[in-house]
Amino acid sequence: MTSVALLGYGTVGSGVLEIIEKNSRSTLQTYDEFINISNVLVRNIEKHQNNKHFKLFTDSYEDILSSNCDIVIEVMGGIHPAYDYIKSALQARKHVITANKDLIAEHGDELIALANKFHVTLNYEASVGGSIPVIRTIKESLAAHPIKSVTGILNGTTNYILSKMYNENLSYDNALKDAQDAGFAESDPSSDVLGFDAARKLAILTYLSMNKVLKVKDILIDGITNLDEKDMIIAKQLGYKIKLISKAINYDHCLHAFVKPVYVRSNSMYGLIDNEYNTVAMDLEDIGEMHFSGKGAGKEPTASAIYGDILDILLNDKKVITPKLKQVKICHYAQGQHDWLVRLYSLNQPINLEKVLKFFNHGNIEIKDFADSHDLSFTITDISENKLFDIIHKLQDLNVISVSKYFMIL
Amino acid sequence: MTSVALLGYGTVGSGVLEIIEKNSRSTLQTYDEFINISNVLVRNIEKHQNNKHFKLFTDSYEDILSSNCDIVIEVMGGIHPAYDYIKSALQARKHVITANKDLIAEHGDELIALANKFHVTLNYEASVGGSIPVIRTIKESLAAHPIKSVTGILNGTTNYILSKMYNENLSYDNALKDAQDAGFAESDPSSDVLGFDAARKLAILTYLSMNKVLKVKDILIDGITNLDEKDMIIAKQLGYKIKLISKAINYDHCLHAFVKPVYVRSNSMYGLIDNEYNTVAMDLEDIGEMHFSGKGAGKEPTASAIYGDILDILLNDKKVITPKLKQVKICHYAQGQHDWLVRLYSLNQPINLEKVLKFFNHGNIEIKDFADSHDLSFTITDISENKLFDIIHKLQDLNVISVSKYFMIL
Repeated sequence: MTSVALLGYGTVGSGVLEIIEKNSRSTLQTYDEFINISNVLVRNIEKHQNNKHFKLFTDSYEDILSSNCDIVIEVMGGIHPAYDYIKSALQARKHVITANKDLIAEHGDELIALANKFHVTLNYEASVGGSIPVIRTIKESLAAHPIKSVTGILNGTTNYILSKMYNENLSYDNALKDAQDAGFAESDPSSDVLGFDAARKLAILTYLSMNKVLKVKDILIDGITNLDEKDMIIAKQLGYKIKLISKAINYDHCLHAFVKPVYVRSNSMYGLIDNEYNTVAMDLEDIGEMHFSGKGAGKEPTASAIYGDILDILLNDKKVITPKLKQVKICHYAQGQHDWLVRLYSLNQPINLEKVLKFFNHGNIEIKDFADSHDLSFTITDISENKLFDIIHKLQDLNVISVSKYFMIL
Repeated sequence: MTSVALLGYGTVGSGVLEIIEKNSRSTLQTYDEFINISNVLVRNIEKHQNNKHFKLFTDSYEDILSSNCDIVIEVMGGIHPAYDYIKSALQARKHVITANKDLIAEHGDELIALANKFHVTLNYEASVGGSIPVIRTIKESLAAHPIKSVTGILNGTTNYILSKMYNENLSYDNALKDAQDAGFAESDPSSDVLGFDAARKLAILTYLSMNKVLKVKDILIDGITNLDEKDMIIAKQLGYKIKLISKAINYDHCLHAFVKPVYVRSNSMYGLIDNEYNTVAMDLEDIGEMHFSGKGAGKEPTASAIYGDILDILLNDKKVITPKLKQVKICHYAQGQHDWLVRLYSLNQPINLEKVLKFFNHGNIEIKDFADSHDLSFTITDISENKLFDIIHKLQDLNVISVSKYFMIL
């Protein structure tokens, strides 16, 4: 018998309890193991008086620590008190499963080290990618192949908004309102739309897939709030969609990571991921690209990922695998040459196209829109981000343009 | 230490040896386990005299059985003597890993029962989908959710041929020749192009994902040899591609499985899988559709899958999980209503369109091509396969048409 305690009984917590109950017979048949719920920690115990599991409920964390539970599942969210609870649980040599992306992104390296120290497992697959079981896949099935890069569409809220903007020609504001009405965005959506939620997930994915420490502060983060309708129109004209892409690239001597809007071909693996769907792609040595996609969030996918984390502990009970993380150098630009969609604006005088082209040495530029002489859009191929950035800033210094933005084309 | 013996030392066998060597340090670091090669069984031992591992080579299976190896890896292919070797290994209580799809498709249920009887593991992930680690994902991460259907593009040879026919307007014969020249098709390609290879993989995938026995003889199999250039032209005109789709559907009271050419939208997850790539999609209760894609075959992907199977045994060494298979009823038509692309030919008199439409009750039919009055192409929506089949056969009986074919639209 494996005993588990739940910290928190919200949407996900109740989903975990349901999934354990629903599968108890098949778990016993297949794995010869019964999963028992020992306790459920809640803040207000009175609220749960009519729950058929009421006798399991407690409002004292001491009850959890002193119980004989093998696994503590944290589904309360937020940094405090989850952080202290998880630390105490690991120190009490209990395995821990968490779906708390804020916590893992911020304190993951410390908690992983603690799990290693006390020879217990810390599983956090549910904190990223919803039901897409990318982590176990990497840890076991693809263990023999170094990962060159990991790329994802990791935030359902922004993907829903971008899909609405693209498909229904909505402005950002209207698409956000639509997402809020449909329950896909919170009333304060800033963590999603500014890219921080995706960045936390990218940090976790990098922990998991590369065993490397990537702090959120080391990720270049640009959300979707600066996208305008013209960005969308140009994307459509060129056969592209705009997606909030999270990517970590493992170079020989450094790691580069970003979350930003990227132009992807409409009929590509990324272009097909719409609305609340997520995708994770990995580029592996000797193996090439692999893509995994599915629903990114919600009660069932998250509970399902936690259940997978339980099975993982249950199956590996004699061996604890929370790999040590390596520290790495961060580089702040994508290395090598890429293609870009560039938009330059001038608030005052019209843009002097000749001057712009001269600065780019008349390189591989294709003008896409210049109907309004204050607003120039073009694609440029095979140029490094570093060089692109330098030229644009020179144009700004010389007042040829006043504002600019550019998108990587994937 | 875990000791493994290899049966066979061809492309895959040498790949497995390389991957074990290359990862020996990281395996030790991450899993605290050293993987040792105890023996390599080959037919002609003289041929390997210059191999640096020569002392491991043997031509006697008795040496393997009497060795203290924990795991026997069968990569020799073919039914005999692999079948007898695997049986003896299981009876000697050794775990077995095989990449042999012919063997598992034919004798899988018997070998799985034998593994269960002797409390050892039989892993065969490498026999299907190359590097796509779909099986472990299902067994652990998605264990809580019944699988409603599994759909795949499972054969690289036919997918390569179909990609060539579509992209370069080649005839079937020329595309096959191209595939043979490029090393993607064998000189006798019948097992691939007639659909049998995909059917074996579908049987295995059904074993693995649904724990249900599906025999190859119970799969409706239609290969790609009957496709002509016009099928391709019509597909292109309608925005579709033709893919050899393998699908098993879990109905309430029966299982339906087919391998056949299907029209899929060009800009769909299936439409994007070209050339030697494979994909597996699953529809899970509460979770929805998940897609996994990657390279389907080749030395590295297959060796990688076998290495994953080794890690699986190594990590789960105290618990043996080769789930028992259930017998199920097979149904011979897809249930429910689907959309179809229908082509009717008449060898003698022109086709009487009015008669055809009357038989279909002027249903949801859209004529796509009737320029040649002997060759009618149309789409029809929302009709069961059963009914479609009946009507077409009535038209044949009445000599309105002489030959026909139809494709499911996915």
